[in-house]
This record gives sequence, structure tokens and C-alpha cells, in this order.
Amino acid sequence: MFLKNTWYVAAWSHEITADGLFQRNVCSQSLLFYRTADGTVVALDNRCCHRHAPLSLGRKEGDCVRCMYHGLKFDAHGLCVEIPGQNAIPAAARVRAYPVVERKQWVWVWMGDPARVDAALIPDTVALDHPDWRYKPAYLHYQASHELISDNVLDFSHLSYVHEKTLGGATAIAATRPKIELLDNGVRITREVRDAPLAPYFRQFVRMPAIVDRTWIYEYLVPGVLLLETRATARQAAAGEADFMSLLSCQAITPETAGSAHYFFMQAHSFARDDANVTEAIYQSVMAAFAEDKRIVEAQHALISTTPPAEMLGLPFDLGVVQFRRLMERRRAAD
Amino acid sequence: MFLKNTWYVAAWSHEITADGLFQRNVCSQSLLFYRTADGTVVALDNRCCHRHAPLSLGRKEGDCVRCMYHGLKFDAHGLCVEIPGQNAIPAAARVRAYPVVERKQWVWVWMGDPARVDAALIPDTVALDHPDWRYKPAYLHYQASHELISDNVLDFSHLSYVHEKTLGGATAIAATRPKIELLDNGVRITREVRDAPLAPYFRQFVRMPAIVDRTWIYEYLVPGVLLLETRATARQAAAGEADFMSLLSCQAITPETAGSAHYFFMQAHSFARDDANVTEAIYQSVMAAFAEDKRIVEAQHALISTTPPAEMLGLPFDLGVVQFRRLMERRRAAD
Amino acid sequence: MFLKNTWYVAAWSHEITADGLFQRNVCSQSLLFYRTADGTVVALDNRCCHRHAPLSLGRKEGDCVRCMYHGLKFDAHGLCVEIPGQNAIPAAARVRAYPVVERKQWVWVWMGDPARVDAALIPDTVALDHPDWRYKPAYLHYQASHELISDNVLDFSHLSYVHEKTLGGATAIAATRPKIELLDNGVRITREVRDAPLAPYFRQFVRMPAIVDRTWIYEYLVPGVLLLETRATARQAAAGEADFMSLLSCQAITPETAGSAHYFFMQAHSFARDDANVTEAIYQSVMAAFAEDKRIVEAQHALISTTPPAEMLGLPFDLGVVQFRRLMERRRAAD
Repeated sequence: MFLKNTWYVAAWSHEITADGLFQRNVCSQSLLFYRTADGTVVALDNRCCHRHAPLSLGRKEGDCVRCMYHGLKFDAHGLCVEIPGQNAIPAAARVRAYPVVERKQWVWVWMGDPARVDAALIPDTVALDHPDWRYKPAYLHYQASHELISDNVLDFSHLSYVHEKTLGGATAIAATRPKIELLDNGVRITREVRDAPLAPYFRQFVRMPAIVDRTWIYEYLVPGVLLLETRATARQAAAGEADFMSLLSCQAITPETAGSAHYFFMQAHSFARDDANVTEAIYQSVMAAFAEDKRIVEAQHALISTTPPAEMLGLPFDLGVVQFRRLMERRRAAD
Repeated sequence: MFLKNTWYVAAWSHEITADGLFQRNVCSQSLLFYRTADGTVVALDNRCCHRHAPLSLGRKEGDCVRCMYHGLKFDAHGLCVEIPGQNAIPAAARVRAYPVVERKQWVWVWMGDPARVDAALIPDTVALDHPDWRYKPAYLHYQASHELISDNVLDFSHLSYVHEKTLGGATAIAATRPKIELLDNGVRITREVRDAPLAPYFRQFVRMPAIVDRTWIYEYLVPGVLLLETRATARQAAAGEADFMSLLSCQAITPETAGSAHYFFMQAHSFARDDANVTEAIYQSVMAAFAEDKRIVEAQHALISTTPPAEMLGLPFDLGVVQFRRLMERRRAAD
Repeated sequence: MFLKNTWYVAAWSHEITADGLFQRNVCSQSLLFYRTADGTVVALDNRCCHRHAPLSLGRKEGDCVRCMYHGLKFDAHGLCVEIPGQNAIPAAARVRAYPVVERKQWVWVWMGDPARVDAALIPDTVALDHPDWRYKPAYLHYQASHELISDNVLDFSHLSYVHEKTLGGATAIAATRPKIELLDNGVRITREVRDAPLAPYFRQFVRMPAIVDRTWIYEYLVPGVLLLETRATARQAAAGEADFMSLLSCQAITPETAGSAHYFFMQAHSFARDDANVTEAIYQSVMAAFAEDKRIVEAQHALISTTPPAEMLGLPFDLGVVQFRRLMERRRAAD
């Protein structure tokens, strides 16, 4: 059901502390995360191989974790290194360890065949960790399938309606056809709207003319990573007004179960770089806007889950959605 | 599973306001209700045909509703009249519109074949909208199948036990055999009990002798509409005591899902017509009594749902229940 | 699924009062318990045979219970003795009565073939009702299968980890191999640990040396009854210190549904027999320790229930668990 041979964002780096045990479900598997003494993140199947008690209720001992049910101890590779009361440790006494890469504030986990692991496949999330950019990290839990959330971010025509008073502010966004390019690992979407009202939420942190050219350029990559630049360009700025503004956003959607998902995101600014108020205002704006998405997508998910099955009607502007869904199907078939 | 070719009560008229969007599930379908400018009630499938977002989170625009996910706009017939960014509107861009009749404070919806719609099939709920009768409208949500609620109202022997201290007050009610007549569209049940104690709840709004003749005459009609007259007659009333009292009740049970239902009801008086205290006292009494039904029927539903299946034991006094269940089976078979 | 031909503990005696109706699910059956005038406990199927309303919402009338839906009345054998409005009572008008034995504060119910009932099969729970022993009765509801709870009590190596700071206090407990004997009706397990720290919780109610010999001797009997003696022996007690301490515990695990269970238990002392503070301190200690079990076993149950199926890894010290599981399988096969 889930694509396995791919990197999923499992956590923000700060969620996995130096001393703690952190549990999160990814693709319906319960995973345990912790750090070894040198800071390396470990991801293990959270089920003790013995009686399936959760290791996340266990105890970290050095670079190992001890199951606090009957005391089996596992190292960072998932190998059992101690069984109380017996010397011999059977080869089967191990829990699965998942390849992990921590890069630029995100912890990525590989759920598939370890032989196919390739850290080069991890998208380059520049703005997540660049000295020129500032942001406050955000997370939302969704009671909806990851596919419906992907559909949402693959079609920014929803900005005109879902985000009418926040990110949108113009029906022209929906009326504009974006350019959609198929990539090896996703789609690239460019949407340009000329002479449109400045996004309502921009007014909270920037002074710009009321009418600007607006551009969104983003890639949406397998299995659910959004790398976005949002631009506003003013052709005739008055004194004291900016004539250009750009925000970078990294977002990742990771399935928790078939019907729920994790949403990691941020929106970064490089102007007013050292003004914490700007950082906070952008964070609050994005949280408010993403609550709008969450409301409609969860309602959509609930409606689909509780009423008789029916076909969705495809429309020409679903092109991005369709191309990405097909790409995901090909990847799952290749799994 | 549900009878389709029939009229269901979906709402009290006042629930669907001039400006609002009103959502309610009927027969496991999520329906959207609203009024056009001339006050006509519209019922549409609540799922936008495009991505199945709920239209009830949309926006009313004149006599149309706009989906606030990607902006499709539908008219009162369910036809899509606008798709942002494209001129051609495919014929399949529509949501199902359900025939609706608003009559005497109730909004009726037809869930089946539109070719078979006939407003003449709607029962005549006289007391719901008659200048001589007063009532306060009531609604309860049931976590039980509509069939168990129908069973309940089809056998008033339960008044002696469930409503011992409210509507009942005499074991003679259960001991009496009602007359049961099969109608084309339901059953008519007449239960007469002579020389019985006045119903306990009557004492709150009428002065009558302690012993009266009590009569219930009602029709219970497909798919779940109860039209009831409750009478008390005193053969020897003292001065200041009434020698006759009659209440009219209209009730409707509508399936929400297989395991939950809507219950619309009222109990009307024509004596003391302009005394709001009497109207309120009757309303409070009925609400208290119907909470007694809800308690036992929901417990019955929960017990049946969580324990192994077993046969119910038919008894002679189940005649009304049995006849109505058979009638419903014939109707469903004819669907 | 559940073993039927066996005695289950359904309640503490005090839970079934002289006048009340008491409902509890055992093996997914909803049971009604009450006492006749002479104090005898009755267990009936809680479903009225007529429309399956719960009799627990009914009314006790002498040694009978009346269903408060339509008034059917049942005697202590489950026979219907009154149907309002009709004289003839069909033979099928009855609810199942379950054999019950009340013995030493526990109420036992037989869920299987009445022809195979034998009160001699009830384990002898001496300490539950002996003038030399004092305790306060305890109950916990578990959101976990009874089998996982049985597994827990069949392997006291968990004391070292789950109860590190309460009942355990020494990894030597887990490192020690118990003696395991197969009985006709269960297993007998003896675990002796020499020169171990006194259990942390003992310190709350007894003065003993810090290092003692610790022994647990218990039987775990079909379908889930634990009879345990916990001993501490000091070979060199100082003045004012006890050189021996023994606690007796009776525990019973009864399935409520496939995924939930009732846990009845107590821990009794005969020293300081008339000191209510000691009784209370032991009760509080055991409640705290059993909350530790509940936390890990419910987490284990939730993990198993929500993640893909996988095999557990058998280890040599699972011998008690394995032997009891096999015995239960043989019993179920013989059902």
C-alpha cells in the first residue's frame, strides 16, 4: 500500500533529543528513534522481538535500548546484546533497524530494502539550514490520507478558495494555468499571476504595493516533499515599499497510517533576517493558513470514508495531481 | 439496505435558514440543504463531484453554492455552472439533486428514483401547521438503528414500563390488546383502556379526575412517520375539571446511518391554546419521556451490536411490529 | 474463541448487593447478576428473550427481574413467569441462566455446558477468606486481551524491569530460572533468589534486613487464576527486624471481550493483622505495581493490534507461558 523504497521525513531534528526515546508511526510501522552518544539518530522497529512490547517504554542504556518488559537489550543496529538469565543469544533475537539520515533539521528514514538505500536520493532542502534564511519549524497531525494532502499541495488553485483571506486573496490564482513539468522524481509547477492583489497574510510582515505580480515555483517530490518559492514583485513600488519579496518553504507529508499523516513544514524569510517578530508573524500566518487546509482535507477524508464509494470527476487543471499519482503508482509497482 | 423510493423527513423547516448551508446525513448519504432566494429548499449531494470536498463547507452565492476547495459552483439543480479557469463545463460536472418538499414545518426528501416522485405520498401531518394547535418542535439524535426505534413506537405496551412515571402510569396499558389494521402505507393502531389512572405527565398541564378512559389512535406510516392522537375522557368530572383532553403528535424517524437515526417530534395541544406555559410543560414532559425511550433503545442497540447474534422471541402482541416490518420488506423488495 | 467449560471469576461478592442489578460482560456475553432473598447469586443472560433489551435496566421484583421494556418477568432460573396481557407463556420464553458459585468473596460463573458443571473444579483460594489474613480487594479493567495478561503473570522475570522500583528491585529475579511443574489444571512455578535486595515496596510495611532470600511460589490455573505466596527470609536479622515475611495473593483474569479483560486481585498479610495501616499500605503498593503492568501490557496490546502481524520470538524462559498456552489450547479443543 505504501511506497517502501523511498526516504520519508520522520521527525524534526529537535524532536529526537540527546537522551530521549521518541516514537512515531511511519507507514503503519511503529518506530523508535534515539541518538547514540555521538548524536547519530537510530531508528528501530519499536516492537521487542520477544513479546512485542514497545521499546519506546524501555530504557536507553548508552547506545542501546533495553526493553523494560523482560529486559532484552538491543544495540543501535537492532541486535539483541543481552537476554537476562541466558548467555546464548539466538540470531533471530533482533529488531529491524531502518536506515536513517539526518540532514538539515529533518530526520529521514528508509522503509524499504536496505540494499537500495541511497542518501543521494534525499531532496536538497536548502532553506531548512542556510545562514541566510530564518523560520520556526511547524508540525500538524492530519486525520486524512497522505494522498489527499498531496493532492492539495499539487494544485494551488485552492489558494483562491481555501485561503481566500490568508495565502490567496485573488480568484485569478485559480483562473491561471500553471506550467507543469514532469521530473524523474516528481513534478515542477510554476504559476504566475500578474497584477494581482498582494496576499493578505503578506501585509503582516512586509510593506508592498497593493497590486503585484505573484509567482509560485515548486517541486513536489516522491514520496511527498514540497520545495517552494513564493514571490511577489512590484513593478511600481513607492518609497518605503519593497519591490520584491520571496519566501522559501519546505514541507513533507509522511503517512502515519492509511488514514492519517504527519505534516512537517516551515516558511522561511531572508529579508529582515534578524527580526524575530517577522519570523513569528510568518509562522503564525502559515499555521493559520494550514489549519484551513486541514479543515477541508479532513472533512473531505471523513466524507469519503463514511459515504458510499463514488468516482471523482477529473478536470484539466488536475494535471499536476494526475501526473504525481501516476508517478507514485509506477514507483509502488517497482517496489 | 435503506428503502429508497420514499419520502424521509430530513429537517424541521426552521433548521434550514434563509442564508445558511445545512448538512445532514440521510440513509448514509451526506446531504446539503439550503434555500433559494424565493425560500425553496434545495437538497444536493454534499460531495463536490470534483474532489469530494463537502459543499457544506462551501459558500452560498445567490441560489448557487460554491465549493470552497477549488471553486466549482453549482446551481440549485446540482449543475456545475462555473469552473475557475476554464470555459467548457463537462456534462458530468454535476452533483445529484434530491427532490424536496417542504410542507407544514417539515422538509421531506426523496432518496430514490426521481421518476417515481409523487408529493401526494407525503402523509398529511395536520397538527404540524394548524391554527388550532400549539407545540414546540423537538429533535433527538439516536445511536440506534431506525428499525429498533420504529419497533418501539409500534408497540405502546412499553408505556407501562419504560414510561411508568411519565406517559404510562398503569400496567393496564400493556395488558390491553390494541386493534391493529393494515393500511396500504402502514398500520393503524387503536388502544383503549377504560378506568385507568390519568397519565402522570398530564397532571402538569390539565386538571382531570384521577381515573379516566384513555385512548391512543395512531398511524405509523412508511418509512417511519407516526401520527398520533392521545385522548383522556372522564365520565364523571368534578367542577373545575376537564372531562376530555386530546393531544396530537407528529413524529418521524429517519435513518442517518445503519446504526443511528434522527427523531423529529412534537406533541400539540388545542386547549389553553394561548398559554405558553402549557406548551412548554408539554414539551418538557415529552422530552423527559422520550429520553426514557432513547435510554432503553440505545442500550438495546448496543447490546445487540456487541454480543453474539441471537433470535428474538416473537410474541402475539408484536403484531404491529411484525406487520410493519413485513410491509417495509415488501417495499424494499419493490425498490 | 473463549474456553467455555470452566469457572470464571465474574465479580467480588461485594459488587453484587442485596438489592441491586449488576451487569458485567464475561467472554463477550452480557450477564446480569443479582441476589435472591436468601442471598444466592443469580447470573442470567442480560438480554430479554423478547426484544433483547438489557435486563440490567429492568427492575428486581422479589427473586425475579422484570424487563422494563415490555414487562416480561423472569425468575432466578431465567424462566419467564409473566407476559403482560397474555396468560400462556411459551416454553421458549426464557433467558439462559448460568451456574454460579459464590465462594470466599469471589463470584464464579460457568459459561459452558451445564451438564459438565462441577463446583469441585473451583480453585481453593484460601487467603481470600481466612481469619488469619487481611487484605483490601482490588479490581482493574484492562484494554488488552486476557492472554497477554496471563503471559505477564506467568513470567515473573518481568519483576526486574516492569517493577524495578516496586515489587522487583533486583535484576537477579530475571536472571534466575524458576522451577516449572505442569499440573492437570495449570502450572506451578517456584522462583528462589538468594541474597537479593528486599523488594522496594516491602519497606513501606515491614522492617527487615536490606539483603534477604526471596521466594515466589505460585500456581496459575485455568482459565486465569493465580494463587501466590511471596516470601522474604533474612538469615541474619538485627534486633527489631523481622526474619521472615510472607504475603498471599489471589488474582483472577477474566476475558470481557477478545480485547479487554477484568482483573480481580488482592495481596494479604497475616503479620500486623489488626493494623489497618499495613493493609492499606499493601493495597496501595500493589495498586501502584499493577498499574505498571497495565501500562506495558496495554501498550503491547495496542502495538500488536495496530501494526502488521509478526511472529514473537520464543525464548527458553518462556516455558511457563508456553506450557500454559498449550494447556489452554487443549482445553479449548476439548470444549
